[in-house]
Amino acid sequence: AEPVTPKPTKVQELHVYELNERDRSSPAVLKLSQKPVNSLGDLVPFTNKLYSGDLQKRVGITAGLCLLIQHVPEKKGDRYEAIYSFYFGDYGHLAVQGPYLTYEDTYLAVTGGSGIFEGAYGQVKLHQIIFPMKLFYTFYLKGIPDLPAELLGNPVPPSPAVEPSAAAKATEPHATIPNFTK
Amino acid sequence: AEPVTPKPTKVQELHVYELNERDRSSPAVLKLSQKPVNSLGDLVPFTNKLYSGDLQKRVGITAGLCLLIQHVPEKKGDRYEAIYSFYFGDYGHLAVQGPYLTYEDTYLAVTGGSGIFEGAYGQVKLHQIIFPMKLFYTFYLKGIPDLPAELLGNPVPPSPAVEPSAAAKATEPHATIPNFTK
Amino acid sequence: AEPVTPKPTKVQELHVYELNERDRSSPAVLKLSQKPVNSLGDLVPFTNKLYSGDLQKRVGITAGLCLLIQHVPEKKGDRYEAIYSFYFGDYGHLAVQGPYLTYEDTYLAVTGGSGIFEGAYGQVKLHQIIFPMKLFYTFYLKGIPDLPAELLGNPVPPSPAVEPSAAAKATEPHATIPNFTK
Repeated sequence: AEPVTPKPTKVQELHVYELNERDRSSPAVLKLSQKPVNSLGDLVPFTNKLYSGDLQKRVGITAGLCLLIQHVPEKKGDRYEAIYSFYFGDYGHLAVQGPYLTYEDTYLAVTGGSGIFEGAYGQVKLHQIIFPMKLFYTFYLKGIPDLPAELLGNPVPPSPAVEPSAAAKATEPHATIPNFTK
Repeated sequence: AEPVTPKPTKVQELHVYELNERDRSSPAVLKLSQKPVNSLGDLVPFTNKLYSGDLQKRVGITAGLCLLIQHVPEKKGDRYEAIYSFYFGDYGHLAVQGPYLTYEDTYLAVTGGSGIFEGAYGQVKLHQIIFPMKLFYTFYLKGIPDLPAELLGNPVPPSPAVEPSAAAKATEPHATIPNFTK
Repeated sequence: AEPVTPKPTKVQELHVYELNERDRSSPAVLKLSQKPVNSLGDLVPFTNKLYSGDLQKRVGITAGLCLLIQHVPEKKGDRYEAIYSFYFGDYGHLAVQGPYLTYEDTYLAVTGGSGIFEGAYGQVKLHQIIFPMKLFYTFYLKGIPDLPAELLGNPVPPSPAVEPSAAAKATEPHATIPNFTK
């Protein structure tokens, strides 16, 4: 019989910034509800750029769909159901699903991954800095081997002023991960 | 080295009722196929209310998307691919994906969760009582700590006549879970 | 206390062919971006037929959604985010999420499953043979019991000429799995 080893349950934290630099024609706001206020039926496919938490490396992109679930007038915001992936070049990707509220932090489920993220599970904290342009995520990952050092730099504390390093923004070779997702 | 403990594989059953009380403008039927009969291309974002299996507590909402896959004339129904989440207020959420057939029970995959459902996996049985207004679910959950008692009350056997308690329907404080999802 | 047994981490390979035989009105290309070139906002619900890797058995269908993320002119192709399920009749289903590039192979995350696939995780390699009509998949599955022999026949090496056996194509009883998904 093949050996059966238990799946590791150690938690690894991974920080990333998702930035909309207005050069990907994203988001695509599909007002399919045909109502003037944001309403169930509106769909928002999106894709943004992804940087390491220390903002020294361009790692890839996000890609997926937000479903408008309800307008929340008392919060002057909206509830979305979000289904998307985080791409890390040759390292692979992480898939997530859960709530995106435009007015407060949320936790989404990590539903799986590929490459070095194969077998990943756990959750991810979504912290919005500037709607909908600048977001900071903290993944709490289980089920995977130790992450590579270049993804684990000290995260820059989130604030409206944070920007990726000039080299990362320019995707200079030393400021990207292998085959970063374009 | 950090200790590595195996993920528990004990199965916990969790029952919930999903009720459409016609006050959330749901579902949003998007006839994007532009065909008179239900067809691939039609999309149905939805959000309904969620009650504990004993119907004594309002717990939250469902939120997500049904994709019309095919009309099944011999069953006088339809096959959907469903991708959605179950929200339980401060307890967190469960994400699921799988088949929704309007004419028979199905099992969907539990793809992950947040909060007390962090790391959840397993499957959920979808039992439709009245299309598409009243559904009863039995989750078979693994990978998570023991669920709180207020979610584990004796489920009311599903029947067309079931209704939540008046207190739960009115979201009286003693008949809701902490910060139930609105 | 109930016994807690570790989840098996043995990898099982499963091969399937996804074929578009032009008889399911699939895909439904929804040009919601309203742009002439493929663009973010375009949605592609789809459902194709699924055969065992040895092409001797019709097993079921695929069902789900591709989101157009970006046109990639230098590759003369497109990046999609794909969210879909593989249906295997009475055996259950597998849910996946990840990248679909029309110009190269990719790995998607296995996010869960039902039936014999309950608790499945891992990844799946998508190998496109003829866009978008003929695809070959290799699942690398963990977390589940041994798969049934009729799903584990020797895979036919992928090539543009491969076809299912005449009996499988005609869904003759000996060339289908139990209650194959129609």
